[in-house]
Amino acid sequence: MRFKDRFGPWAIIAGASQGIGRAFAERIAGEGVNCILVSRSEGPLAALAADLAERHGVECLAFATDLSSPDSAARVLDFAGDREIGLFVNNAGADSVGLRFLEAPLEDWIRLADLNIATSLRFGHAIGTAMKARGRGGIVLVGSGACYGGSQFMSVYSGAKAFQMAFAEGLWSELRPHGVDVLYCALGPTDTPAFRDLLARKGVPPLPGLADPAEVAATVLGQLGNGPVYNWGQADEDAGYLPMSAAQRRQRVQMVEMGTKRIYGD
Amino acid sequence: MRFKDRFGPWAIIAGASQGIGRAFAERIAGEGVNCILVSRSEGPLAALAADLAERHGVECLAFATDLSSPDSAARVLDFAGDREIGLFVNNAGADSVGLRFLEAPLEDWIRLADLNIATSLRFGHAIGTAMKARGRGGIVLVGSGACYGGSQFMSVYSGAKAFQMAFAEGLWSELRPHGVDVLYCALGPTDTPAFRDLLARKGVPPLPGLADPAEVAATVLGQLGNGPVYNWGQADEDAGYLPMSAAQRRQRVQMVEMGTKRIYGD
Repeated sequence: MRFKDRFGPWAIIAGASQGIGRAFAERIAGEGVNCILVSRSEGPLAALAADLAERHGVECLAFATDLSSPDSAARVLDFAGDREIGLFVNNAGADSVGLRFLEAPLEDWIRLADLNIATSLRFGHAIGTAMKARGRGGIVLVGSGACYGGSQFMSVYSGAKAFQMAFAEGLWSELRPHGVDVLYCALGPTDTPAFRDLLARKGVPPLPGLADPAEVAATVLGQLGNGPVYNWGQADEDAGYLPMSAAQRRQRVQMVEMGTKRIYGD
Repeated sequence: MRFKDRFGPWAIIAGASQGIGRAFAERIAGEGVNCILVSRSEGPLAALAADLAERHGVECLAFATDLSSPDSAARVLDFAGDREIGLFVNNAGADSVGLRFLEAPLEDWIRLADLNIATSLRFGHAIGTAMKARGRGGIVLVGSGACYGGSQFMSVYSGAKAFQMAFAEGLWSELRPHGVDVLYCALGPTDTPAFRDLLARKGVPPLPGLADPAEVAATVLGQLGNGPVYNWGQADEDAGYLPMSAAQRRQRVQMVEMGTKRIYGD
């Protein structure tokens, strides 16, 4: 079945204005699926929508809203009206803070948690219900390898991504019998404007080996039927293990601690 | 150092009225630490506070509030006033729903996520800041082995517990240099009124081998200095591994799916 027959006619991309979300929008529009782009930045979003519509011959709408506000999902869905949403991509929720938990105001962390968690719950419930009734569709939660464990500089971020992975696994288990695909992708460091800004602010030279957003979007969408989890750069059958005992978790945190300190400073 | 010198003079126990929270309160009061008990159920909470105060010769206050409401942490902390909080236990957030994600209203899941996540963030930020300044204290997040991966019947619950584990790891990494202990405990099935009610509602006969709440509270408090993670029943040095590849995660979800279906029905 063609991508647009399985995941069209409309997609909602949350966090679409730049980086990975923009790459998803580009790829999805390229597959002939109409897009509703959502993010805070009204101007860039409208320009992207017009550009995608023209180049790919699809309908493309922009809806600017702050996805961390409790009513934003309802407002996006109201805006979407009776358009049939065959694909939902939650790309909102990158860590733009990059600080220790007690070094930033609580509100910043509540916002980061909401962007990942409440956004996934609110859209997932409404869109998942409609997809289940139709017997088709796809839900993608854009995550990070940070989901596999926390450390200072990423306590809320890793928690939020850990939530998304376990939640996606549950939703996959629930929706798979109804023909709906759910995928959480644990990405590695990716060459996005936000990540480049963060490194520059921290005075860190550009990292080698960053993933290309266009390649990430293409690969992840290609894995959509192989949920619930896709680890960037890892073959499906590659064995990989996480430590689980208390002593091992402790060692893992300390290892990640050293790694993140190299990026974020001491 | 005696427990009460390290983790006194006051403790806040969120979700204290019954089960594991009540067992924590009992144990902490028994150590001579004054307690502020928090939960929704005003009557039972006040009775428990009076009982603990009398039997253990400590001060014990009850504050009834719905911890899923955004201002509840601020109201509890306002109630606590200038009492020095040396210990915070977040035991709010058991899954009282026990349904698939699309089978219960969204609001129930937002509430479950908030009880675990927003409660940990809000109390953790305020109390963690004060503990860091004083150079001592302890934070316990009461979790579940569900943190290690999701499946239907526990998509939001496992996500919320996965959040808590990764967040606790980050906070432990941040606060350890400042003399503050942080511990996430991944508990197994425990003999609480809530769990017994859930099984009865589902028509499941009592499960064998449930953990005793008093033993759980004593053991977890004894492990408080050995963070960030304690797995119930697992020795610190016991090796344990979680699957990580896409194929392994998929198999794991399907295995848990079979297990939970046995309890929750098909």
